Amino acid sequence: MIKVGIVGGTGYTGVELLRLLAQHPEVELMAITSRGEAGTAVADMFPSLRGKVSLKFVDPKDAALDGCDAVFFATPNGIAMQQAKALLDAGVRVIDLAADFRIKDIAVWEKWYGMTHAAPDLVAEAVYGLPEVNREAIRKARLVANPGCYPTAAQLGLLPLIEAGCVELDHLIADCKSGVSGAGRKAETHILFAEASDNFKAYGVAGHRHLPEIRQGLARAAGREVGLTFVPHLTPMIRGIHATLYARVTREEDFQSLYEKRYAGEPFVDVMPAKSQPDTRSVRASNTCRIALHRPQGGDTLVVLSVIDNLTKGAAGQAVQNMNLMFGLDECTALSHVPVLP
Amino acid sequence: MIKVGIVGGTGYTGVELLRLLAQHPEVELMAITSRGEAGTAVADMFPSLRGKVSLKFVDPKDAALDGCDAVFFATPNGIAMQQAKALLDAGVRVIDLAADFRIKDIAVWEKWYGMTHAAPDLVAEAVYGLPEVNREAIRKARLVANPGCYPTAAQLGLLPLIEAGCVELDHLIADCKSGVSGAGRKAETHILFAEASDNFKAYGVAGHRHLPEIRQGLARAAGREVGLTFVPHLTPMIRGIHATLYARVTREEDFQSLYEKRYAGEPFVDVMPAKSQPDTRSVRASNTCRIALHRPQGGDTLVVLSVIDNLTKGAAGQAVQNMNLMFGLDECTALSHVPVLP
Amino acid sequence: MIKVGIVGGTGYTGVELLRLLAQHPEVELMAITSRGEAGTAVADMFPSLRGKVSLKFVDPKDAALDGCDAVFFATPNGIAMQQAKALLDAGVRVIDLAADFRIKDIAVWEKWYGMTHAAPDLVAEAVYGLPEVNREAIRKARLVANPGCYPTAAQLGLLPLIEAGCVELDHLIADCKSGVSGAGRKAETHILFAEASDNFKAYGVAGHRHLPEIRQGLARAAGREVGLTFVPHLTPMIRGIHATLYARVTREEDFQSLYEKRYAGEPFVDVMPAKSQPDTRSVRASNTCRIALHRPQGGDTLVVLSVIDNLTKGAAGQAVQNMNLMFGLDECTALSHVPVLP
Amino acid sequence: MIKVGIVGGTGYTGVELLRLLAQHPEVELMAITSRGEAGTAVADMFPSLRGKVSLKFVDPKDAALDGCDAVFFATPNGIAMQQAKALLDAGVRVIDLAADFRIKDIAVWEKWYGMTHAAPDLVAEAVYGLPEVNREAIRKARLVANPGCYPTAAQLGLLPLIEAGCVELDHLIADCKSGVSGAGRKAETHILFAEASDNFKAYGVAGHRHLPEIRQGLARAAGREVGLTFVPHLTPMIRGIHATLYARVTREEDFQSLYEKRYAGEPFVDVMPAKSQPDTRSVRASNTCRIALHRPQGGDTLVVLSVIDNLTKGAAGQAVQNMNLMFGLDECTALSHVPVLP
Repeated sequence: MIKVGIVGGTGYTGVELLRLLAQHPEVELMAITSRGEAGTAVADMFPSLRGKVSLKFVDPKDAALDGCDAVFFATPNGIAMQQAKALLDAGVRVIDLAADFRIKDIAVWEKWYGMTHAAPDLVAEAVYGLPEVNREAIRKARLVANPGCYPTAAQLGLLPLIEAGCVELDHLIADCKSGVSGAGRKAETHILFAEASDNFKAYGVAGHRHLPEIRQGLARAAGREVGLTFVPHLTPMIRGIHATLYARVTREEDFQSLYEKRYAGEPFVDVMPAKSQPDTRSVRASNTCRIALHRPQGGDTLVVLSVIDNLTKGAAGQAVQNMNLMFGLDECTALSHVPVLP
Repeated sequence: MIKVGIVGGTGYTGVELLRLLAQHPEVELMAITSRGEAGTAVADMFPSLRGKVSLKFVDPKDAALDGCDAVFFATPNGIAMQQAKALLDAGVRVIDLAADFRIKDIAVWEKWYGMTHAAPDLVAEAVYGLPEVNREAIRKARLVANPGCYPTAAQLGLLPLIEAGCVELDHLIADCKSGVSGAGRKAETHILFAEASDNFKAYGVAGHRHLPEIRQGLARAAGREVGLTFVPHLTPMIRGIHATLYARVTREEDFQSLYEKRYAGEPFVDVMPAKSQPDTRSVRASNTCRIALHRPQGGDTLVVLSVIDNLTKGAAGQAVQNMNLMFGLDECTALSHVPVLP
Repeated sequence: MIKVGIVGGTGYTGVELLRLLAQHPEVELMAITSRGEAGTAVADMFPSLRGKVSLKFVDPKDAALDGCDAVFFATPNGIAMQQAKALLDAGVRVIDLAADFRIKDIAVWEKWYGMTHAAPDLVAEAVYGLPEVNREAIRKARLVANPGCYPTAAQLGLLPLIEAGCVELDHLIADCKSGVSGAGRKAETHILFAEASDNFKAYGVAGHRHLPEIRQGLARAAGREVGLTFVPHLTPMIRGIHATLYARVTREEDFQSLYEKRYAGEPFVDVMPAKSQPDTRSVRASNTCRIALHRPQGGDTLVVLSVIDNLTKGAAGQAVQNMNLMFGLDECTALSHVPVLP
Repeated sequence: MIKVGIVGGTGYTGVELLRLLAQHPEVELMAITSRGEAGTAVADMFPSLRGKVSLKFVDPKDAALDGCDAVFFATPNGIAMQQAKALLDAGVRVIDLAADFRIKDIAVWEKWYGMTHAAPDLVAEAVYGLPEVNREAIRKARLVANPGCYPTAAQLGLLPLIEAGCVELDHLIADCKSGVSGAGRKAETHILFAEASDNFKAYGVAGHRHLPEIRQGLARAAGREVGLTFVPHLTPMIRGIHATLYARVTREEDFQSLYEKRYAGEPFVDVMPAKSQPDTRSVRASNTCRIALHRPQGGDTLVVLSVIDNLTKGAAGQAVQNMNLMFGLDECTALSHVPVLP
């Protein structure tokens, strides 16, 4: 059994981790920390876990996380970078669901996240946890930077084209729509039900923190910088991301075949038949990314539709997938749920 | 492996059965029928099942259901009563998710359902599939009448009081609220998104078909007729039923303790601490019923809150629970999902 | 022109007041106060008001409210009771949308609201602003206590029965469902979109502040105390209250006719044909209350369905109706909007 | 008073027309037709209109529409083209809310709409009813082709750039999101609440009928053909369209100033401050289009955000705006409602 600790378990990625790990046959949940809720039973805060999780939240200083085999950080940005070193030194493997280790260029990270990085050396070591790109490195990693939700949907949707070098790289467009759980479980006015329901809006158009992360991933695949316009939107649903991706063809290919080959054997990427229109609910509460290709009117613009559940493949599910890889388990363990529809 | 067939798989109870059975370790899905969709891959209609269910819908006449061990009817009312006899004669065990075998009094059934019953003898044989009441009979049943969604929530909420004989029986009130999936996957105007969203209304106040079913169950426990006012409402959510139940105390009891004892050992009934207020999402996509007791202002009116997922404990989950019992399996097999929250 | 000031305009009742008053032909908006947002243009916070309201929020101390003819308090409980006296002394007429002046029994108010009342004498003077009960007193009032949202729906639904003395008074039940805007525009976790959407729950079952207010209104009509069980629920919609009211008949009447007569001539109460089932959207963004009567199965329990928009007839609309009465205007001025459907 | 008839009043554009016209001070509603609902009181189908509209639906053959001054067609495509001629000959002015007269090129129309056009000569005469482009022609028109919802949002968002000739014309992108009421009030499975709620998807990616309409409008402004990729999406809200528009700059301009000048004096176009992010609810139930400009990262891609209410400015509101122009009324008559927020 893998002894697992979770740092910061009161948010949506925390409760989603608990949902997935509570029935993972190879995991023993050791501790889940929360400064504010120490002493509260986890199942009192999240009644969905009654009878499934018997732990109480503990104060971080009482958590003995260094006795775990794996620790997940489901914390705000800036926490894991302060605590990861000690855990790694104690032989614990660490998966950060926040952004602390995602961006290799420290200056870029510091600009977008507005703080000084506390552990630049660990950034260099950390493996970006997108298994469809870095599977072998993840298996050996001590420290995994779990990707952001938009970056997961956008990269999985665009990478085959970038890797094949068949689209224009300077004017890519990612028009993305996220369910409101993507904003986290924070008491903020703009994500109140009466504000976000029956409403649709763009946000972060001037610059969203996931932009440099997507760019980094695409640039790595392209071997050069790419130009990307990324516009996120808030849509009135709880879970789900729908990325609508636009790229201009520079060299003809059988694009459908390109995607099918690229993702052949990938357990969590489903290339749908050409001209499909995946809906986000088709992946609700599951770790699957579904992708479909379009070439409207036979023009030179490809439209790629990519959907994930932002809390599962976009966060906690992918983190468990990474843990499975790091510990030599079947990659799909505890992740084979059928999506919940309707 | 239990060979399973499903009659009528294009509705919400059908797709929910498929979600649960697709990963049932003791089940082999043999056939799923649909007159209108014969030849269509199930996963083309419900992309959530891509990679999980490889069957195509078949025409009922081509389905060879008599070679199955168990057949579920996820059909409109009036179908199972015509087809069950032949299957039972062939040694198949039958679970009807519709209402054909729920009401013991044929005249009452015919009045409420507006048709002549085709198999009154089977009504007599059928076991009402509420395991919390009829577990032993279900184990031995050839034919199970799976309860309705409102009746499941209302009976589980009221039975301990009725059985204990401590409330007034002539003026019970069940004010129930259902998500829209309870109306089925039918192309009807009143359940369109633009009609049912951001809206709330009562329906069937003059008389809903679940009324005689609830009354029958309560009367059986009381040993006499009961008076019940049942008002169902449509609430803008997909899944979930919330029953708010009112009963007047005629004999004092430790009601909390009464419920805890009544449901001790029940794997799918969670009696919450007194004064809890369960939300429907705490059971979303799971087979659990959560119940909480209130005695507002210390008066003589008890308020019982009972929540289920109408498609799981209220339909397909309970049907699988019944199948597990009928075939001597662990009752919880394939039903231990953690609810999806948020 | 009536010079109007609004104290506390950043919540939902504030913005609804602005929506209604911005096009009131007899109103000149003079000032709208907010401690936290002083200096912000109202239309920057609520872009729906761009081009309609040119005011900025001002700090209360700079507002010169005593130069107004009428001041609305759209503040939390406990504010108006401190400021009303000075305004009244300056000749301003005051309408409080909070609860400070609703409960005549000071001890009861202090128990439920958890504070010492600052102006008991004004409570005695204040007129409870339910025009269907107190129209003539409102016309002459200096100070109006605008009713709560649940109390408006519940009282309008039950009063004809109580006044006629034809139902049992000790076991009335009000099972009420509210849209989430009823909880206000406060940054609280439980009303986040990802918490309140696709979910349904009861709250305040042990005791909600609107209980004594409803009881007071019913008792006044009955001429004696009444017994009422009141269970409020949160339903995933923005606006609307649906009250499902249960009363036991003690004397037969033509109840439909009773309601029609009681509300004949009332511009904002619509008694629908018997057995109607009003949906909340039929009054969305309008000042109308629609009521329908049922007698399920011909039994002795009457079911009354009463719907309002909690922000309009349940708050700001009724406040404007009261202002119209207080200033001798046509009661419907600026309130004749057709509900928004779908 | 303008005598008005409506052909086909049972859909969402019909009931929205009724909402707006019921309180238009210069309009007398004469007749509203429906084949299926003849004899039904309009307010029985749409209780929001109780007390506001006393008409019954009449069969088209009994409607005496030729005695009207103006007739609106709120019908499916293909009806108005058969009936408009007779009405025009009788001196009636006609506004078609469907697509029959929107596309000037008959062959293009017939290809996209899959039928033979019944009145090509009227297409030539019809004025495209986008007042911000064709105001003077609309004033004199006998026959107005009311624009589609997506075309209204997309054209108002892109026209200033096209007219100024400062963006690349071959690779425009319109990524548009619509509320579900845009699909109409039709009993179809895919727009059921339980299908469309908590879900997001693209549709019509291969080609949507509004594509040629948008292209025609942009080409007219450009003086040449334009290349446009148009991807519509269904978002779980009732009303609203959000168009996210991408264009590459070919000549620098003060774009903010360009838009402000283009729409100076337009009563229903609100150019917001640069970098605003309009939400659809800021125009809910109103005739306003709000537009905001972005230039992410200072790159060469302009992002224009354009929001409307699809049923008001995108359909019935614009139709009333056109009627006001055609009859010499103040363009804003009956259209000055403040948007409903929240």
